[in-house]
Amino acid sequence: MAYFQNINQIQFEGPTSKNPLSFKYYNPEEKINGKTMEEILRFSVAYWHTFAADGTDPFGAGTMIRPWDHYKGLDLAKARVEAAFELFEKLNVPFFCFHDSDIAPEGNTLKETYDALDPIVAMIKDYMKTSKTKLLWNTVNAFTHPRYVHGAATSNNADVFAYAAAKVKKGLEIGKELGAENYVFWGGREGYETLLNTDMKLEQDNLARFFHMAVDYAKEIGFDGQFLIEPKPKEPTKHQYDFDVATGLAFLQKYDLQDHLKFNIEANHATLAGHTFEHELRVARINGMLGSVDANQGDTLIGWDTDEFPTDLYSTTLAMYEILKNGGLGKGGLNFDAKVRRGSFEPEDLFHAHIAGMDAFAIGLKVANKLIEDKVLEDVIADRYSSFTEGIGLEIVEGRADFHKLEQYALSLGEIKNKSSRQERLKAVVNQYLLETLSTVTV
Amino acid sequence: MAYFQNINQIQFEGPTSKNPLSFKYYNPEEKINGKTMEEILRFSVAYWHTFAADGTDPFGAGTMIRPWDHYKGLDLAKARVEAAFELFEKLNVPFFCFHDSDIAPEGNTLKETYDALDPIVAMIKDYMKTSKTKLLWNTVNAFTHPRYVHGAATSNNADVFAYAAAKVKKGLEIGKELGAENYVFWGGREGYETLLNTDMKLEQDNLARFFHMAVDYAKEIGFDGQFLIEPKPKEPTKHQYDFDVATGLAFLQKYDLQDHLKFNIEANHATLAGHTFEHELRVARINGMLGSVDANQGDTLIGWDTDEFPTDLYSTTLAMYEILKNGGLGKGGLNFDAKVRRGSFEPEDLFHAHIAGMDAFAIGLKVANKLIEDKVLEDVIADRYSSFTEGIGLEIVEGRADFHKLEQYALSLGEIKNKSSRQERLKAVVNQYLLETLSTVTV
Amino acid sequence: MAYFQNINQIQFEGPTSKNPLSFKYYNPEEKINGKTMEEILRFSVAYWHTFAADGTDPFGAGTMIRPWDHYKGLDLAKARVEAAFELFEKLNVPFFCFHDSDIAPEGNTLKETYDALDPIVAMIKDYMKTSKTKLLWNTVNAFTHPRYVHGAATSNNADVFAYAAAKVKKGLEIGKELGAENYVFWGGREGYETLLNTDMKLEQDNLARFFHMAVDYAKEIGFDGQFLIEPKPKEPTKHQYDFDVATGLAFLQKYDLQDHLKFNIEANHATLAGHTFEHELRVARINGMLGSVDANQGDTLIGWDTDEFPTDLYSTTLAMYEILKNGGLGKGGLNFDAKVRRGSFEPEDLFHAHIAGMDAFAIGLKVANKLIEDKVLEDVIADRYSSFTEGIGLEIVEGRADFHKLEQYALSLGEIKNKSSRQERLKAVVNQYLLETLSTVTV
Amino acid sequence: MAYFQNINQIQFEGPTSKNPLSFKYYNPEEKINGKTMEEILRFSVAYWHTFAADGTDPFGAGTMIRPWDHYKGLDLAKARVEAAFELFEKLNVPFFCFHDSDIAPEGNTLKETYDALDPIVAMIKDYMKTSKTKLLWNTVNAFTHPRYVHGAATSNNADVFAYAAAKVKKGLEIGKELGAENYVFWGGREGYETLLNTDMKLEQDNLARFFHMAVDYAKEIGFDGQFLIEPKPKEPTKHQYDFDVATGLAFLQKYDLQDHLKFNIEANHATLAGHTFEHELRVARINGMLGSVDANQGDTLIGWDTDEFPTDLYSTTLAMYEILKNGGLGKGGLNFDAKVRRGSFEPEDLFHAHIAGMDAFAIGLKVANKLIEDKVLEDVIADRYSSFTEGIGLEIVEGRADFHKLEQYALSLGEIKNKSSRQERLKAVVNQYLLETLSTVTV
Repeated sequence: MAYFQNINQIQFEGPTSKNPLSFKYYNPEEKINGKTMEEILRFSVAYWHTFAADGTDPFGAGTMIRPWDHYKGLDLAKARVEAAFELFEKLNVPFFCFHDSDIAPEGNTLKETYDALDPIVAMIKDYMKTSKTKLLWNTVNAFTHPRYVHGAATSNNADVFAYAAAKVKKGLEIGKELGAENYVFWGGREGYETLLNTDMKLEQDNLARFFHMAVDYAKEIGFDGQFLIEPKPKEPTKHQYDFDVATGLAFLQKYDLQDHLKFNIEANHATLAGHTFEHELRVARINGMLGSVDANQGDTLIGWDTDEFPTDLYSTTLAMYEILKNGGLGKGGLNFDAKVRRGSFEPEDLFHAHIAGMDAFAIGLKVANKLIEDKVLEDVIADRYSSFTEGIGLEIVEGRADFHKLEQYALSLGEIKNKSSRQERLKAVVNQYLLETLSTVTV
Repeated sequence: MAYFQNINQIQFEGPTSKNPLSFKYYNPEEKINGKTMEEILRFSVAYWHTFAADGTDPFGAGTMIRPWDHYKGLDLAKARVEAAFELFEKLNVPFFCFHDSDIAPEGNTLKETYDALDPIVAMIKDYMKTSKTKLLWNTVNAFTHPRYVHGAATSNNADVFAYAAAKVKKGLEIGKELGAENYVFWGGREGYETLLNTDMKLEQDNLARFFHMAVDYAKEIGFDGQFLIEPKPKEPTKHQYDFDVATGLAFLQKYDLQDHLKFNIEANHATLAGHTFEHELRVARINGMLGSVDANQGDTLIGWDTDEFPTDLYSTTLAMYEILKNGGLGKGGLNFDAKVRRGSFEPEDLFHAHIAGMDAFAIGLKVANKLIEDKVLEDVIADRYSSFTEGIGLEIVEGRADFHKLEQYALSLGEIKNKSSRQERLKAVVNQYLLETLSTVTV
Repeated sequence: MAYFQNINQIQFEGPTSKNPLSFKYYNPEEKINGKTMEEILRFSVAYWHTFAADGTDPFGAGTMIRPWDHYKGLDLAKARVEAAFELFEKLNVPFFCFHDSDIAPEGNTLKETYDALDPIVAMIKDYMKTSKTKLLWNTVNAFTHPRYVHGAATSNNADVFAYAAAKVKKGLEIGKELGAENYVFWGGREGYETLLNTDMKLEQDNLARFFHMAVDYAKEIGFDGQFLIEPKPKEPTKHQYDFDVATGLAFLQKYDLQDHLKFNIEANHATLAGHTFEHELRVARINGMLGSVDANQGDTLIGWDTDEFPTDLYSTTLAMYEILKNGGLGKGGLNFDAKVRRGSFEPEDLFHAHIAGMDAFAIGLKVANKLIEDKVLEDVIADRYSSFTEGIGLEIVEGRADFHKLEQYALSLGEIKNKSSRQERLKAVVNQYLLETLSTVTV
Repeated sequence: MAYFQNINQIQFEGPTSKNPLSFKYYNPEEKINGKTMEEILRFSVAYWHTFAADGTDPFGAGTMIRPWDHYKGLDLAKARVEAAFELFEKLNVPFFCFHDSDIAPEGNTLKETYDALDPIVAMIKDYMKTSKTKLLWNTVNAFTHPRYVHGAATSNNADVFAYAAAKVKKGLEIGKELGAENYVFWGGREGYETLLNTDMKLEQDNLARFFHMAVDYAKEIGFDGQFLIEPKPKEPTKHQYDFDVATGLAFLQKYDLQDHLKFNIEANHATLAGHTFEHELRVARINGMLGSVDANQGDTLIGWDTDEFPTDLYSTTLAMYEILKNGGLGKGGLNFDAKVRRGSFEPEDLFHAHIAGMDAFAIGLKVANKLIEDKVLEDVIADRYSSFTEGIGLEIVEGRADFHKLEQYALSLGEIKNKSSRQERLKAVVNQYLLETLSTVTV
C-alpha cells in the first residue's frame, strides 16, 4: 500500500521550479569533481524523527498526523518499515539510520525485545534487497526506558551496564546483518545531574570499558563498520561526558580508544556547546576524527536541542567546506537528525522538510566547492602564514629553534608589522560566492 | 610611606564582629586537620587587578582612585611595589602573582622591556626578604600589545612567536629569581576570530612547540616551578584553544605534554564554558591535573568575564570540597583573580573585597571539611555504586566481563530496580551544613 | 487509605534534627513581626508536578513510582485527590493549585471534559470542608492538547479561541466554587514559532480581548479572585508574548488591563529571560503589580525550564526581601511550581523536596526580615540617594527643575565627587546575615 | 589633504565585479517601487567606531592604524572631521551620526567641554554646506567619564543628573544647528549593578523626568528632530533599564512619553536580549514605534556586544521586510553602529566593512521587496488567519463575542481541525528568494 499517496517521486526541477515538491538545487546525478552529488552528500533519513516521533514536547501532546497511526504493536512496526521504504524511494535517498527502539517495540525483558526485533530486521533486510537505500548506521536506544534513569554504561547500577551491553551486542549483530557502514554511540544518559552523588572517575572508566568491549565484539563477529561517538554537552543530563569533540578526544586518548572511534558531529549539539558547527567539524578534521554528520540546525537564541531541518546556507556552506577539505565523508554521511516542527504536522511536511535540507546542502556543496576551486580561502591562508615557510618561522616549524635562538632573534627586531586579517572583506566574499555561484553553475 | 594609611592590619575578630575591616571567618592560624587555614588556602593577591587596573570597561574610562596615581613610568612601578607589600602585610596573605607588564612598563623594544623589568624584579626580591609573602606564580602578558593582535604562540607571524618566546624566557628567569612556585600560561590571544582565515592545525602545533621549548628551558635553568595552563573558552577571541579543562587535556595528551603541565582553573572561565566551577575542578582532579585556582566568580546571566571577588558560599564550599579531596593544592594556591567593581573605586574597597573573598573561602573550607569528616557524600556514593564492588559489577570493573557474559547475565534479569538519587535531600543537607557548621565550630 | 504510609506528619524539629523528614527551619507557628510563618509564606503545593507528572523528559519515559499508578481514568483522578489531601495534611501546607487537566482527564469534547471535571470538583470541595488547605489558584490547561498547536487565545484558528474561552469560563466557575484566591493565566502556546507566518498584532489584540472577556465574566459571576499572568520568555514556543514582567506590563497598559491583572512570577522563568528572580519581583513591586510567586529555581547553565525545588538561600533571601518590602503577598502565595528530579522517583522524594523548599524559604524569610529590621540596605540606600532630598536634587524630584536651571547649576560645579557603591562589602554583609541570623534567632 | 589616498570613489560595479572596493549590490540610484535605494536605505556612518575608536578591548590596547593618529587635542578633532567628510564622499553615504565626545575632547569642566565643541560644530556645519551627507542623529556621551560611574539621569548623585542634563541641552542645540533628523538616547549607565544598593523606582522616575525636560526643551528651541531611545539589555551595567523594545514601551507608557519618543533598534542589542533583530523591529512596528535602526550584527555564541558590520543576508532580508512593511524608516535611517574587527586595523578595512554592510542591506532590500511584491508571506498569513474574517472569528475581532457565546459555540464543535504551519517549506522559499531574486533582477 502507499502511505504517501499524494506525493509523487521528488524530481530535480531546478531553481526556477514553482513545484514545492521538487528539488531545486539537489540533482543527485550532477557531478562535482568527478563524483555525483549523491555520492558526495550521502544523505540519510533518520527513522526516529520521521517514522516514530509524534511531536510531543515537554508541554504538549503529539500533533503529528501519520497514515500509519491506526496500527498498534508489531503491525505498527511493520507499517513504518513499509512507509519508510516508500519515503526513501520517493525522496531518492541513499541511506537511512535507526535506533533499535525505532523499528520495534521494546519488550519487558531483553528476550522479548530481541524477539520483537528479529522479524523487523528480517523485513528490513528483505526490503533492502530491492531498494537502493542502505543503512548508514544503526544504534541502540539506552536512554528512554526508566532503567537508564541514572545512565547506561555510566549507570551506578551494574545490572543496567550489563543490560545496555547486551543491547549493543544485539545492535552490532543487526548492523552486521544489514550491512551498516557505521555504528553510533550517543550517550543520552551518560553524564550526571549533580556532582554531589557522582563518582565521575568510575563512570568514565566504565564507559571506556564498555567501548573496548564493543570494539572487541565487533572484531569477533567481523562487523567492519566505523564506530562513532556523538558529542552533546547537556540535555537530557545536566552535563554529558561527550560534551564536544575536544572533550571526546581527551577521553578517547586517555583510554586508548582513538584508533577505534571517530565522531558523529551534530550541528545543534555544536551550538549547545558554545561552538559553531564548522568549528566542531574542523577540530575533528585536523585530528583525523571526522566520521559522520548529523545534519540539522539549532536556534542559538534557544537553550535546548531543537533539531531543525538545516536551511541556513552559511552553515551548510561552511560545513561542506570542512567536509570537502576532509576528502569527503568516507563511510559517513549527512544524516537528517531533524524533526519537522510541531506545527508542521501533515505527512506532506516530511517531504518539504527533507527537500529543504537536501537543497540547502546541495547549495552548500556547490558554493564550498567553488570557493575551494578558486582557492579563495586557501590563498588567504597561505599568505597569512607565509612567515612560517622561511627563516625563523621555518626553524620553529622544523623544530630547530629554542628559547635562546628566539630571544636572540627577537632582540634584533624593530617594530613588528602585522597585516590586517580582512575579516569583513572575507564575509563579503562569502556572500558574493553564495549569491553568484549558482548563477554561474546553472547558466 | 603608607599608601593605605587609614587601614589597620586586618585581624580575625570572629563572626559577630561589627568591624567591617576584620576577618570574621578566616583565621589564618586556626588548624583544620593538622594544618592551618593559611597553609590550606594559600591565598594570593593578583597584582594586575589590585595594583595596575583602573576600572576601565568597554564603555567607560577608569574610575579607580589609587594613592599612587600621581606617579609616572618607573616611579609608578616602584610605588606599586611599595603599596603591594603594604597591602600584603595588612591582609596577611602568603602569596601574590603577577604578569611582567603589571610590575614594569613595556618598552618599545624587547631590550627596553627587559631593562625596565630588572630593577623592579630586584626591588621585589628585596622586599620579599623581609616579607612573608611569596610568589605563587608569575607569567608574561602576551595579549595586550598590538603585536599580539593575531595571537602570540599561535600568531600567523613568526616574529611574534619569537617575541613571545623571548618574553617567556625572561619570565622563567624572573620566576626562578623570585622563587615562584608555578608559572602560568593564559593564552589570551591563542585562538581565532574566524575560521575563514585560520590554519587551526598549524596554530595548535606551534602552541605545542612553544610549550615544549618552555619546558626545556625551565629544565635548563633549573626552574622547578609547576607549569600551568589556564583554560578560558572565549574572550577576547571568538574561540580560545584552551576552551576548558577537557579541551586542554586533549591538547596536552596529543602533544605529549601531560606530564609537564597542569591546570590553573578559574571559576568565571568555567561558567563561560558552560560548566560549574566544581565541574572543572573535578575533571582536573580525577585526571591528576589540578594545579592551582583563580578564585573569583562570574555572573551566569552575563556573557563576559566579570572577575568578581568570590562570595557565593555554595561555590566556595564545592570548590573546597574538590580541593580537599585532591589532598590540597600542592604548589598551587587560591589566587584572587578578581577585581573590585567599577563603582567600588575607593582604596578601602580593595580590603573589603579581599576580606569578602577570604572569609568566603574560609567558610567553604570549614563546611567542606565537615561534610568530608561526616562522610556525608562519601557514604551516599559508596552506597550508590556498591553494585560495582561485587558480582557482575566487580567483574566489569576488573576487566573480567565481555559482551557474551553480560548478555547472558542480562537475559537472566527480571525488572531492574534503581534507587532514588535523592538530589533534593542532598541539596537540603548541604544547606544544613552551610548554616550549622560554623555554629558548631565556633561554639 | 493512605498513599504515603511510611511518612508521618512532618514536624518542626529544629536545625540540629537528624530526622530527614522534619522541618529544620520552617516552623509554621513561629511569629515574625506579629504574623506566623505560615501566614507570611502561604506555601502551596502544585498539583501537576506532585500528583500528575511522571518524570517524562524529551529523551525519556516516566520514571516516577506513585502509589496510585495502578488506577485509570476517573479512578485515577479520585485517587490523586485522596493522595493530595493526605500529602497536604502531612506537609501541613495551607494552599494548593491546579490546572483543570491535572484533576480530571480531558474528554474528546468540551462536554465530556466538563462532565469529567464536575465530580472531581465536588470531591475536592468535600475534602476542603475538613482540610485546612485552601485553593491558592486554579487555571486551565490550554497548551497540551494538539488543538493548541498554534496557540489558544492567540491561535490563528477562531474555533480554538472559542474552545479556550469556554475552558476558562468553566475554570472561573470552578475557582468560584472552590474559593480560589486567584486565577492564573500562563500562556504556554501564546507566542510564535516564526515571524514568517505570524500576525503578531492580531494575536496580541485577540489575547487582550480574551483577558477582557475573562474579567467581565468574573465580575458577572462574582468571582473575586485576583487575576494573574505568568511571564515566561520562551519554551515551549520560540517567543512567548508574556516574555517577562516588563513586557507584560507594556501589554497590560496598552490594552487597559493594568487594573485587572497582576503577575505570578516564577524564579526559573526570570532566569530564562536573562533576569534574576529578585529583579522580576522588584519590577512588579515598584509598579504595584506583584501578585503571587511560583517558587522554584532554574539552572542558569541550562537553557530550559528545569523547575527545581528552591534551595538556593541567596535566591530565597532576596525574594523574601522583595516580598516583605511589598507588605507581603496579599492574596498570592509561594506555590512550589517545582518537580522532583527524574532520578528522585520515590514517593518519599516528594516530601524531601517540599521540606527542602519550605526550609529554604523559611531561612530566606528570617534573614530578609533581619536585614530589614537592622535597616542594612535601607540605610545604604538612604545615604546613597540623599542628594535627591535637598537642593538641586529635591528640585528635580519635585518637578521644579528644567534644562536651563540644571545647566546653570552644572556650569557652577567643580569636579563632581561620587562615593563608592561598596558592592563587595554588601555581599559580605549578606553572607554574614545568612550565617548568623539563625544562630541569633534560634538561641 | 586626503587621508584615504589609495581609495577611490566607491562605485557600483555589479555582482560580478572583481574589484573589492566597489559596490556589487548597492546601487544608490537604482529605483525600487519609485524610490532610490539611497532614499530607502538611508545609510549612515557612525563617527565613533569609524573615526574615534582604536580597537582597544578589555584585554588589549588599540591596534587601529589611522592616518590622523599623529594629531593631538583639537587638531585631532579637526583632522577627524576632514577624514570623515572624505570617507562620506568616497562611500557616497547620505548620513552620519555622532556623540558629542566623538567630535571634540571633553574638558575638565562643562564650560571647557562646550568651548571645545563649538568650533568643531562650526567646522562640521561648514563642511555640510558642500556635502550631501546630513546628520541622521546626534547624541551625548553620558557613560564614559568616571562621573557617570553610577549612572547619568539615573545616578544617585543629583549633580551628575544636572551635568548630564546640561550636556543634553547642548546636544539638542547642536542637533538643531546641524539639522539633525533625530536625537538618540542610549542609556549606557542607566541601569544597576546590584539591587542591594539600588532604588529602582526613584531611578526610573528620574529618567522619566529627564526625558520630559528634554522634550520640553526641544519644543522651546524649535528642534523638530525625532526622539529615540535605544534598548540594550546589559553591558556595561548588569541590567539596563531599556532592556528591549517591550520594556521601553512599558516605561514610555507609564510615564506618558509614548507620543514623544520612538525606538532606535540595534541588531546586536536584540540578540543580547534573547530576541531576533526582526522580532524587535516587529514589536516596534506594530506599536507604531519604529524610529531608526543601528545596523550591525552580533555573534549569538558570544555574550557581549560585538558590533560587527552586518553581513548576514537572512538578517538584512528580514529586517528590510519589517522596514518596508513599516512604510520605510521615515526620519530614521540605517546607521552602521559597527566596528571593524580588532584584526582589521588598516584604513582600507573601513571601506571593505562599509561596502560589506551596504551591499548586504541592498540585497536584503531587494529580496524583501520581491517577497512582498509576490505576496509570499502575506498570502500565507491571510490564509492562516482567515477564520477571523468571518463567523465566530469576526465576532471576536469586532467585540461582539463573550464567554457565554463562545462556550455555546465551542460546545457545538466536533474535533477542531488545524492546518500545518509549513515552517520548513517557508524557510526553503526564503532560500529560493535569496538565491534567485538577484538573478531575476539583475538580468
